[in-house]
Amino acid sequence: MSILIDNIAILAMNGQDSYIEKGYLLIKGDLIAEVGSGAAPQGNYEQTIDGTGKVALPGLINTHTHAAMTLLRGYADDLPLMDWLSTKIWPLEAKLNDDDIYWGTMLAITEMIKSGTTTFNDMYFAMSRAAQAVEQTGIRAVLSRGMIGVSPDSQAALDDSRRLVEQWHQAANGRIRFVLGPHAPYTCPPEYLQKVVALAEELDTGLHIHIAETRQEVEDIQNQYGMSPVQLMLNSGVFSRPTLAAHCVHLGPDDIAILKQYQVGVAHNPESNMKLASGIAPVPELLRAGVAVGLGTDGASSNNNLDMIEEMRSCALLHKVSTMDPTVLPAYQVLEMATTLGAKALGLGEIGMLKPGYKADLILINLTAAHMIPRYDIVANIIYSAQASDVDTVIVDGQIIMKQRQITTFDEQEVLERCQAVAADLIRR
Amino acid sequence: MSILIDNIAILAMNGQDSYIEKGYLLIKGDLIAEVGSGAAPQGNYEQTIDGTGKVALPGLINTHTHAAMTLLRGYADDLPLMDWLSTKIWPLEAKLNDDDIYWGTMLAITEMIKSGTTTFNDMYFAMSRAAQAVEQTGIRAVLSRGMIGVSPDSQAALDDSRRLVEQWHQAANGRIRFVLGPHAPYTCPPEYLQKVVALAEELDTGLHIHIAETRQEVEDIQNQYGMSPVQLMLNSGVFSRPTLAAHCVHLGPDDIAILKQYQVGVAHNPESNMKLASGIAPVPELLRAGVAVGLGTDGASSNNNLDMIEEMRSCALLHKVSTMDPTVLPAYQVLEMATTLGAKALGLGEIGMLKPGYKADLILINLTAAHMIPRYDIVANIIYSAQASDVDTVIVDGQIIMKQRQITTFDEQEVLERCQAVAADLIRR
Repeated sequence: MSILIDNIAILAMNGQDSYIEKGYLLIKGDLIAEVGSGAAPQGNYEQTIDGTGKVALPGLINTHTHAAMTLLRGYADDLPLMDWLSTKIWPLEAKLNDDDIYWGTMLAITEMIKSGTTTFNDMYFAMSRAAQAVEQTGIRAVLSRGMIGVSPDSQAALDDSRRLVEQWHQAANGRIRFVLGPHAPYTCPPEYLQKVVALAEELDTGLHIHIAETRQEVEDIQNQYGMSPVQLMLNSGVFSRPTLAAHCVHLGPDDIAILKQYQVGVAHNPESNMKLASGIAPVPELLRAGVAVGLGTDGASSNNNLDMIEEMRSCALLHKVSTMDPTVLPAYQVLEMATTLGAKALGLGEIGMLKPGYKADLILINLTAAHMIPRYDIVANIIYSAQASDVDTVIVDGQIIMKQRQITTFDEQEVLERCQAVAADLIRR
Repeated sequence: MSILIDNIAILAMNGQDSYIEKGYLLIKGDLIAEVGSGAAPQGNYEQTIDGTGKVALPGLINTHTHAAMTLLRGYADDLPLMDWLSTKIWPLEAKLNDDDIYWGTMLAITEMIKSGTTTFNDMYFAMSRAAQAVEQTGIRAVLSRGMIGVSPDSQAALDDSRRLVEQWHQAANGRIRFVLGPHAPYTCPPEYLQKVVALAEELDTGLHIHIAETRQEVEDIQNQYGMSPVQLMLNSGVFSRPTLAAHCVHLGPDDIAILKQYQVGVAHNPESNMKLASGIAPVPELLRAGVAVGLGTDGASSNNNLDMIEEMRSCALLHKVSTMDPTVLPAYQVLEMATTLGAKALGLGEIGMLKPGYKADLILINLTAAHMIPRYDIVANIIYSAQASDVDTVIVDGQIIMKQRQITTFDEQEVLERCQAVAADLIRR
C-alpha cells in the first residue's frame, strides 16, 4: 500500500527547525518513505490524501493508561483517594469479566483514535483480550499484565505474564509489545520484584511500573526500607531492565539522577495527578536532567478522559503556574513529550518522528476551526487551542484507521452501545 | 416564537436535586415557559427539537474576556509577562483599528457559541463595534470600554463610556448591558476611580475591573498606598457600585471578607492565571465565604481559547492539586460557577438557571460520543470528559443561534476568512 499526502503542513518533530509550511509525505507499506517540502514527486500512489488546511505530525503517544477502566469513567469522583479506591473503584473492578475488559479496551481505543493517539502503554488484567482489541483496531500498544506481589495470585501473575509475552510480544506486525507490569513499590516487595526482573531478563522484555505517585507512598517506603521508592527500585534490580515509570510525582534530586543514569522513561500524568490531588511532578527538572518524560492520561476513572491534546495543554499550564514561570515548558517541548520523548520513554525507536524509515504512525489535524484562527504559530495553536475534534485522520503502521473522523477498522457505534450496556449491567451485578 | 424541546435530560442548575432524566422544556418568546419531567403537554409549537441523547443546561457564562484579542491568539506565548506585553501584545494591539475589533469580536463570538457560551463579560476598546457584533450574532454580553486613568485619553474614556452606556445599555432586547471598565488599581489612581464611580452612579450601571492579578500588583499597591488592591478599591468607592472583579488571585482574609460584604462578583480565570504564571486564586475560600465566583477565559492571547467547558475542567483540577484535596470543587459546584454563580457575579438575575420566567439561554450537549460513555453521572461527564464539540445546540433569548453545530445568525466561514486575512495584514502593518 502506498499513500501520498500532499499540500500539507508538516511538523516532523525532528528538531525545532523541521517545520514544513507546505509539503508532502509518502508512505510505503508500514513505513514513511519520504517527507519533503513543495510539490510531491510524480508517481502512482494507491491512495492520495489532500492535506489542504491540515498539519501532519507524529501520532500522539499515551505513555500510561489502564484502558479498560474507561468503563468506570464518571462512576466515582471528587472523593478522598482511599475512599474512592476502596468503596468505589475496587468493588466495581472486581466485577469486571474478560469480556468487559475487551469492550472497555475497545471504548478506550475508540476515544484514543478520535483524539489522535496512535500508541498507548497499558497495564491491566485479562490482557489477552486487550491485545485482541489492539490487533483488531489497528492501533499500536505496549501491554502489560498488572502484577501485585502481595496478592495470592502473585505467582499466577508471573506465569500469565510469561504466556502473554510469548504469545503477543511483537505480534500484529510489531504493533503489540508485551512487557511486565509490576504494579508499584508498595504492592511488590523487593523479593517479588527480583523474580519479575529475572523473568523480564529471560524473556528479553521491559517493565512498566508506578513509582512515587503519592506522598503517602514515599513516606511508607521510607519508613519501611529507609530509602525512596526510586532508590528501592534501583536496589531491587528494576532499572537493570528498560523501564517506564509512571507518575514520579514525589522525587528528590538523587531520584532524578538515578532515573537519568539508568535511562528510565517517565510517564507524566498531569490531569490524573491533579484530579486525585497526588501532587505536581518535577517535570522541568526531569527534562533539564535529560530524562525522557512522556505524557499519559492514566485510566479514565481518574482523569476522566484519554485526550492527549488536552493532556498536553494541562501539562504546559500546570508547570508554568507551579513554578511561577511562564517560560517553563514551551509549546514545542510539550509536543515533544507527547511524541518523540514518549517514544523514547517507551523504548520505541521506530516511532515519534516523521522521518523516512520510521513507522508510518501519524495524524492530520484540521487547522480551520474558529479556535485555531489566526494561525501565527501552529505549535502554539496545537498545544494551547486545539481540540480532539480537530483530529481529522489517523494512520498507524501505514494503515488509515480514521479518515475524516470516521473510524475504518471497526464499528464505532457497536462499541459505544455495547459499553453503555456493560456499564448498566455492571452496577446491577 | 415557541420552541418545545422534548425527550431531553435537564440540568436546571436550580439546586442539586433538580436533575431530570427525561423531560421537556418549553420556550415562549425570549423566556423559559415550562420545565418538566416526562412527556411534554400537547400543543402547537412553532418548532420542536428532539432532545434524545442530549442534556439541556443553562448556557455557559464567561465572566471575563477581551474578545477582540482573539486576533492575537498564538502570536506570542511562553514569554515572561512584561516581555510578552511590551514587546509583543501592546505593539500589535496598537495596530488594531475599529474594523479589526469588529472582526476579532466576531471570531470570539463564533468560538464561544461553538463551545456553549451564551453570555460573556467583555472589556476592550472600540466597543460600539463589539456591541454591533453582539447585536448581530444573537449572543448576550456585558460590555465595557477599558479605561486607563494614567493615560492621556483618560477623560476621553469617561466621555466615550458615557456615550456607549447611553446608546447600548439594555439594547437588543436587553441582551447588551454596558458597564464601566476601569482597567485596574495600578492603571487607575483613586482620584480617577472616583470619577468613574460618580459616572457609574449617574448612569446607574456597574463596573468591570481587574484586581490583584499578580504578586507584583499587590506589592506595588501595598508600597504606594499601604494597603491591598481590594482595600484600595473599597476606599476609592469602587464597591459602592455593582462590581465584577476579574482575577483576584492574590488575596488576604480581609480582602475576601470585603468582597463578600460588598457583594463583589469575582471572575476566576484559571487557564490565564496558569499560562501567565500569575498564581492560583483562593477559590475554595472565596466560595466558602459566600462570594459569587464565576469562571472566565480571559482574552485568547493568554489562554489561548475561549472554551468554557475546558475552563471548568481546568478549574476543578487545579484547585484539587493546589490544595492537595481531591474533594475540593466537586463537579456540580464547578458547573454552578459557570452558570448560576456567573450570572450572580455579573448581577444578571434573569439567566443562569432553567426556570420558568428566566431568559431562554440554554445549550444542548450531546451525550453520545465515546468520551461521554458510560453515563453514570452526567455532571461528572460534562466537567471531566466533555469537549466543546459536544455542544449541539445553543439558544439565547429564545432564539436558536446554533443548531446541530451550524450557526444560524451569521456566516461563520466569512468570519474565519476575514479574521485570517486581518491577522496576516496585522503583522505586515
